[in-house]
Amino acid sequence: MRRLLVANRGEIAVRIIRAARDLGIETVAVASKADGDALHARLADTCVDIGPSPASKSYLVTTTLVAAARDSGADAVHPGYGFLSERAAFAAAVADAGLTFVGPDAATIERMGDKVAAREVARAAGVPTVPGTPGGVADADAAVAAAADVGFPVMLKAAAGGGGRGIRVVHDEHALRSAFGQASAEAEKAFGDGTMYLERFVERARHVEVQVLGDGRDAVHLFERECSLQRRRQKVVEEAVSPGITDAVRDAMTTAAVDLCREVGYRSAGTVEFLVDDDSGEFFFIEMNTRIQVEHPTTELVTGIDLVAEQLRIAAGEPLRTSQEQVQRRGHAIEYRVCAEDPARDFLPQPGPLGRVTLPSGPWVRCDTWVEPDGTVPPYYDSLLAKVVVWGADRAEALARSRRALAEFTVDGIPTTAGLLGELAAEPWVAAADFHTGTLEHWLAERKDTA
Amino acid sequence: MRRLLVANRGEIAVRIIRAARDLGIETVAVASKADGDALHARLADTCVDIGPSPASKSYLVTTTLVAAARDSGADAVHPGYGFLSERAAFAAAVADAGLTFVGPDAATIERMGDKVAAREVARAAGVPTVPGTPGGVADADAAVAAAADVGFPVMLKAAAGGGGRGIRVVHDEHALRSAFGQASAEAEKAFGDGTMYLERFVERARHVEVQVLGDGRDAVHLFERECSLQRRRQKVVEEAVSPGITDAVRDAMTTAAVDLCREVGYRSAGTVEFLVDDDSGEFFFIEMNTRIQVEHPTTELVTGIDLVAEQLRIAAGEPLRTSQEQVQRRGHAIEYRVCAEDPARDFLPQPGPLGRVTLPSGPWVRCDTWVEPDGTVPPYYDSLLAKVVVWGADRAEALARSRRALAEFTVDGIPTTAGLLGELAAEPWVAAADFHTGTLEHWLAERKDTA
Repeated sequence: MRRLLVANRGEIAVRIIRAARDLGIETVAVASKADGDALHARLADTCVDIGPSPASKSYLVTTTLVAAARDSGADAVHPGYGFLSERAAFAAAVADAGLTFVGPDAATIERMGDKVAAREVARAAGVPTVPGTPGGVADADAAVAAAADVGFPVMLKAAAGGGGRGIRVVHDEHALRSAFGQASAEAEKAFGDGTMYLERFVERARHVEVQVLGDGRDAVHLFERECSLQRRRQKVVEEAVSPGITDAVRDAMTTAAVDLCREVGYRSAGTVEFLVDDDSGEFFFIEMNTRIQVEHPTTELVTGIDLVAEQLRIAAGEPLRTSQEQVQRRGHAIEYRVCAEDPARDFLPQPGPLGRVTLPSGPWVRCDTWVEPDGTVPPYYDSLLAKVVVWGADRAEALARSRRALAEFTVDGIPTTAGLLGELAAEPWVAAADFHTGTLEHWLAERKDTA
Repeated sequence: MRRLLVANRGEIAVRIIRAARDLGIETVAVASKADGDALHARLADTCVDIGPSPASKSYLVTTTLVAAARDSGADAVHPGYGFLSERAAFAAAVADAGLTFVGPDAATIERMGDKVAAREVARAAGVPTVPGTPGGVADADAAVAAAADVGFPVMLKAAAGGGGRGIRVVHDEHALRSAFGQASAEAEKAFGDGTMYLERFVERARHVEVQVLGDGRDAVHLFERECSLQRRRQKVVEEAVSPGITDAVRDAMTTAAVDLCREVGYRSAGTVEFLVDDDSGEFFFIEMNTRIQVEHPTTELVTGIDLVAEQLRIAAGEPLRTSQEQVQRRGHAIEYRVCAEDPARDFLPQPGPLGRVTLPSGPWVRCDTWVEPDGTVPPYYDSLLAKVVVWGADRAEALARSRRALAEFTVDGIPTTAGLLGELAAEPWVAAADFHTGTLEHWLAERKDTA
């Protein structure tokens, strides 16, 4: 690999350019009109103008990006996260153009991106998935019989439903019997199909994900990340490793993730996401992300392994450089996504011109950002300004440093979520790691009520 | 410890404020007129105006600083490095005012600051010092007899000389005999005293220093730093650990440093400096610095231990928190001192107003600085703009990342040494760690000649 086109923008484009430079690989940035003077465009060795500001007309256009790569003499393409990073067709187009796609091949992206196919892979690898009936249950008696295997509480779901519609949570046999008929009738009416199936309902669920690296022959894990602090299913704070699972669960979960990778001959960095039942400690495979994750720096700070550099090396054909025994963790890292959003106005995005900008820096703080003084937040893309990532010898130390670092984050011109994240880092329930995927929204709602 | 006065300015004041904040300690900055709007002044909880810009009228005035501490309700004072940090009288004045001095007590500073007394401590602790005659030698015959013990090459030094005057380096007995009479006569003429003594001359000397922490009862080392890349006896690049010593030397040297600390019941962070003979691997105690060092971040990145926080904890009366076995190192760290100096004009300091400032950030880079866009470099103080500190899993990785980070360092308005340091980080002899304390000046002179 000699020259890499980075098919992305913002902080992850900057991140990838830095990793490539460290490896002596030349870099080609791409920039829409709105990003012509952006940091990623200036940091790269060269930059290709890929057209209008809306991503649908630039960052999301496969043909434009492949042409930019070919015309600039690039021999490889890194998709970053978001945009085209998990589109199998993009990986295929890059490969068809004779270029190296930095990620798994199109077939693997396709397979792992299909929830049903991915669950089949998980089952074949012996990785637990959320218990449920394989298909519809005939009637209330069959549902009760199945629930004995699935385990209460269960979700009664309409097979033809979607988007959360037609779902009921029931906690015992009696409730299941009384709900079944009505739910089925409703589904018949709503979807023209009354078929119902069952799935275990996890009341206090954590979102924990395992970072993996595979070279097609073997795979290793780099421990897990806790990502339960979410708002509208978007991760807000992530940490490595999870403070909410036991060592036994950690061992079993990381082993399961590696088994899954071996099952598909996974080749690149990837993330295996699990749902953890905080009451029982059981964990279930949800899905696999076949790209670099936003929250990858937490794993880097804890393991000392550069995940983007490893992606590049693996894409260039190198085998894994570390055995599982060589992957060691030290201390604790927490990432905060600071966004151009106004928490007082329901997190309304706040694009616009920036004035003075002070970013946290110095000891134990890493700030991955594209933001500069007197820059502009364009209205076309996501609102992520910076990832403030803090390391500590233990979690308490990391939290104390988090409060300091977030307090140093000041941007004139637009509201940001830095202050709110600083408050969050001071909450006793955060310090106690006493949360699940619903806790942050609950806290935000309470905070709003008292404001 | 509840409220800490930071008796310093620039990057180290910022560094200390951050450590205090992480521990929940309130901070009081001090600022001369020139520093009224400086980052350290703004970051602290409060700031005391300590008078005129020249350090001799503000940062170096003991009475002013002690009064500032008392009047602001501080109960402790951190001296940083430079300024009053190694003045025993300052430590005594702080203690006399009923405040905690963050450092060893005045008697220890006094004792270790006296080269003769410090060497006596070293000998008592069994730590090797540079071989030499204890006092004058009577004549050439006595000199030759003594040289057999000291070992060639030796320096023939005038007992009454100083500042390098009256020194001759001789490589064998014959040269010693022929030099002795003339050197003694010259000394008699120059200093009114012809007494000569001998000291081992180390031709290829490395400067290697051991970081220690002591609580008065016990001491641990945090491995060593290589500081041989110097210009005019000022360190320019430092790294942890030394690439130029064997594990056997490392073990012996770090053990010697701890022995020295135990001998004096050392209490605080400190640095034991050694000269290493690159040809023989022998090492000799030179001096001890009883304060935090400029280059302390390299040790922090390698060990994960916050040295300033440990200073504060020890000053507050806490015992050491880590046993020697718990001090583990990972990877390699290199620090570059970026200064407001013009390498093309013999490193002439370049104070003045700054325009746009881009500091390196992101993965594996720590930038400790006080510099901000549209700020000013005052003409009154040292020219250090920032310490760019880079971590890598190994030294080659750290060097590659160094080049990337230093290339990202851009300041409009004044020349800096960042570009030169980037060139240095790309030199094959740096990659090979093939240098001693004279190598950097030699390289600079050659570079000048070819320019």
